[in-house]
Amino acid sequence: MKNRKILLSENEIPEHWYNIVADMPNKPLPPLHPGTREPIGPEALAPLFPMELIKQEVSAEKYVEIPDQVRDIYKMWRSTPLFRAYNLEKALDTPAKIYYKYEGVSPSGSHKPNTAVAQAYYNKQEGVKRITTETGAGQWGSALSFACNHFDIECEVYMVKISYHHKPYRKLMMNTWGAQVYASPTDLTEAGRKVLADDPDSPGSLGIAISEAVERAATDEHTKYSLGSVLNHVLLHQTVVGQEAVKQMEMAGDMPDIVIAPFGGGSNFAGLTFPFLRLNLEEGKNIRCIASEPASCPKLTRGVFRYDFGDTVGMTPLLPMYTLGHNFVPAPIHAGGLRYHGAGVIVSQLLKDKLIEARAHDNLEVFEAGVTFAKAEGIIPAPEANHGIATAIQEALKCKEEGVSRTILFNMCGHGHFDMKAYEDYFAGKLTKHELSTADIEASLAELDTPVPE
Amino acid sequence: MKNRKILLSENEIPEHWYNIVADMPNKPLPPLHPGTREPIGPEALAPLFPMELIKQEVSAEKYVEIPDQVRDIYKMWRSTPLFRAYNLEKALDTPAKIYYKYEGVSPSGSHKPNTAVAQAYYNKQEGVKRITTETGAGQWGSALSFACNHFDIECEVYMVKISYHHKPYRKLMMNTWGAQVYASPTDLTEAGRKVLADDPDSPGSLGIAISEAVERAATDEHTKYSLGSVLNHVLLHQTVVGQEAVKQMEMAGDMPDIVIAPFGGGSNFAGLTFPFLRLNLEEGKNIRCIASEPASCPKLTRGVFRYDFGDTVGMTPLLPMYTLGHNFVPAPIHAGGLRYHGAGVIVSQLLKDKLIEARAHDNLEVFEAGVTFAKAEGIIPAPEANHGIATAIQEALKCKEEGVSRTILFNMCGHGHFDMKAYEDYFAGKLTKHELSTADIEASLAELDTPVPE
Repeated sequence: MKNRKILLSENEIPEHWYNIVADMPNKPLPPLHPGTREPIGPEALAPLFPMELIKQEVSAEKYVEIPDQVRDIYKMWRSTPLFRAYNLEKALDTPAKIYYKYEGVSPSGSHKPNTAVAQAYYNKQEGVKRITTETGAGQWGSALSFACNHFDIECEVYMVKISYHHKPYRKLMMNTWGAQVYASPTDLTEAGRKVLADDPDSPGSLGIAISEAVERAATDEHTKYSLGSVLNHVLLHQTVVGQEAVKQMEMAGDMPDIVIAPFGGGSNFAGLTFPFLRLNLEEGKNIRCIASEPASCPKLTRGVFRYDFGDTVGMTPLLPMYTLGHNFVPAPIHAGGLRYHGAGVIVSQLLKDKLIEARAHDNLEVFEAGVTFAKAEGIIPAPEANHGIATAIQEALKCKEEGVSRTILFNMCGHGHFDMKAYEDYFAGKLTKHELSTADIEASLAELDTPVPE
Repeated sequence: MKNRKILLSENEIPEHWYNIVADMPNKPLPPLHPGTREPIGPEALAPLFPMELIKQEVSAEKYVEIPDQVRDIYKMWRSTPLFRAYNLEKALDTPAKIYYKYEGVSPSGSHKPNTAVAQAYYNKQEGVKRITTETGAGQWGSALSFACNHFDIECEVYMVKISYHHKPYRKLMMNTWGAQVYASPTDLTEAGRKVLADDPDSPGSLGIAISEAVERAATDEHTKYSLGSVLNHVLLHQTVVGQEAVKQMEMAGDMPDIVIAPFGGGSNFAGLTFPFLRLNLEEGKNIRCIASEPASCPKLTRGVFRYDFGDTVGMTPLLPMYTLGHNFVPAPIHAGGLRYHGAGVIVSQLLKDKLIEARAHDNLEVFEAGVTFAKAEGIIPAPEANHGIATAIQEALKCKEEGVSRTILFNMCGHGHFDMKAYEDYFAGKLTKHELSTADIEASLAELDTPVPE
C-alpha cells in the first residue's frame, strides 16, 4: 500500500525563515510618504510595529533565525502534513501527480498562525501589552487571538460589522482564546465615531476596521498593530510552509513542476512558493509558481503595477504594487481573505519580472473545485483554498489532455468548518458568476493620482 | 526543546482490531429476543447488518485483521497524533504528566470514521447499495457519509428534526460528501408517518430516527442499517485508537497510570482503553480506566445492570447493560453524543466486574474544563470531549494536592468547530447545572419489566 502522507518530525521544523529579497534580481522599490511622496525609512513604521519586525520588513539577509519560543509554539501543530492526492488524481483520471500541503491542522484552521505567533513573540519581547488588528472573514483575527493568548498579550480585534453578525462562531473562537472582538465601526475610536455619525447603520468595511485598529495603536504607547498579509515580514514568516514542503517533496523522491497557492495579499502564496523559487533563482530550476486569485478581485491578472495606498482612506505609505486602485470594492464573495485591492510589494516585483504567474477563477468554478476535492480527499476546504484547488485541477486536466504527467503541488491553506454557509449558498444555487467589466476596473484605476514606478 | 507530539508512520497503523472479549474473565451475557425473551443467535441480526459484521459482533477471536482497503482509507488521517499537554500541565501547575490522543484530525472531526469506514467496506463487499442511519448531534452521520462516499454506497441519514434545524452545517457537511439527509420524523416511513399523524410539529428524537432508519433497511433488500456505538463490532473497530496510543506511550518512554475517555454508548471509551486493559488482563498491569459521563445521563454511575432495549420503542433485542431505562429522557445538553440511556454490553460487563471505573460531570464543569483546555492547548474541543478533559483535570489537580506525579492519558475525541453554539451559550451564562433527582431515575427504572441478569 502506498503512503498518502509525508510527515516530518518536530525537529525538522525549519530553524530559519527564508527572505527571498536576498535572491531577487530586482529588489523591491522603496515605500513613499503618503504626503510628501518621498521615499521613507523604517522609522516611519515605529509607532505601529515593534523594532524587530521593522528590521525584518527592510532586511536583505537571506535567512532570519526563528526564535526557540516561536518554534516551540509551532510544535503545537507543525510540521504540517504533505498529502499525495491519490483520490483526487483518480477522480480526475489524470496522469498528473498531485500533492498538497495541508495547513488546516493549526488550531485556528489555516496558515495564519505562522506569522501571528512570530508577531506576538516580538511584541512581547519589546514589552507591548496589547495588539490591535482588523479581521473580515475571521481567519486572521482567530490566528492572532490564539497567538496573543500564548504570550499573555491583550488582543483587540476590529471585526467588520457585517461579518461579526454573519460569522458568530469565528468571533466565539476568538473569545475562547481570550480576545476582545468589536463590531466595527465602534464608538471607541475617532475613525469609528466619524463613520457612525454619518451612518449609524454602517455595515463596516475592512478599510474602516483597519483605521480603527491603527488609531488605537497609534494613540497608546503600550499598544501595537498587527497585519496578517501583504507586508514583507508577514510573507517571511510564512516560508516555514514551503521549506517543509521542499523537504517533504524530496522525501517523496519527487519535485513539483508547478506550485500553486491562493492569492489575497500574498502571504499564503509566498509561504509555499518562495522556498521553491529559491531553487529557481539559486540552482536554475524551472518550477512554475502560479498565484490563484478570484476573478472578482483580479489585481494580478487585470490590475496595474503602480504606487498605491495599502488602505482605503489613504493613510498608509505608498507601496509599489499590482493594484486595482485603493477604492476598488470587490464583489462580496465568500473568500473574504482574498478581497484586497493590492498585492504585497515583493510578490508584485516578482510578477513584474515574470518570475511567477497568476490566474483568476470565477466564484462558481472554485466551489465546484472545492466540492470535487472534498469528495475525493475528505477535507472540506476554506473558500480561499478553493482557488488554489481550481488551478491545480485545471493543470491536472491539461496533463490529461496532453497525455503527459506533471507533478503539481498546491497549498491547501485551511479548512472550511467555519465557512459552511458558503457551501450552503453554493448548493442552493445562490452563487452567481461575477462579471467584472474592464470599464469598472478602468474607472477605479482612473482615480489614482499616485506615482508610476520607473 | 521538548517534543509536543508523538507521531507514527502510516506503516505503523495497526493491522488488527483488538477484541477484548477474548480476554474478559466473565464473557458478555447473550442478547434476548424482545418478544420471547429467550437468547437469540446472530441470524436475528441478518436483516439489518452484513454477515461479516455480525460475525464480528459475536466473535471471541482476540484479533480481527483490518482489510487493506480499510487501512488505506485510515491513512487519509491516521495515525493520529499523541500530544504531551505541557501547556495544560503548566496552567494547572500540576506534577502530573498529561497526554492526549487527538482524534479530531479525521475529515469529519472525530473518532467516528474508524468504524464508519470499516462498516461501509463490509457492506460494499456484500453488495449493499444503500446504508441508513440516524444522527443527533451529527458526528456519526458525518462520519458515515464520508465513509459511504468512498465506497460509492448511497447514504441516508435520519437526523433528529430539531438538530437538523439547529445544526445546518453538520447537515451540509454530509451533503458535501453526497449523503441524503432527512429531518426526522419524515413521511418516507411508516414510523415517521405515524408520529407526524399524531404530532405534525414533532421535533423528533433519536428513538424515532432509529425507527425510521431501521424500517428502511428492514424493508429493502439492498439496504442495510448502521450504528455508530454500543454494539460489539463498533467498539472493536475503535481499538485502532488505543493500539496506536500504547505504541506512542512506549515511544515517549512512559505508560499511563490513568486512561480516561468520554462515555456515550461505549465506542469512544473502548477505543482508547481496551488496548490498555489488555495490558492489565494479560500482563497484570494496573492501569485505571475511567469512563466520563454527563451527570444528566449517568447510566454508569447511577443506573442499574439490567436487560434493557437499545431503542425507545422496544424493537431491538434485549441487552444486558447498565441503563437508566429505555424511556429515560436526558436533559438537552450540548454533548448530544452522550445522551443515550444505556451502555454497550462489553463495557457494562467490565464495569460490573470492577475492571473499569466511571465518573459523572456536571454540564458547567465540562465547559469550564473545555475552555481551560482550549486556552492552554489551542484546540477547541467538542462538548463530548470536554467530559474526558474534566476527569483528566480532576485527576491532575488531585496529583497536585497529594504532591505526587501520575501519568494521565485521555481521548481528545473531536474538535468543537461545529459546536460553537454550545460555547456561545456557556459564555452567555445560559448553561445551568442539571440536578437529576434519584426519584426521576427510580421512576424511569420502575417502568422496566425486563429480566434481571443472573
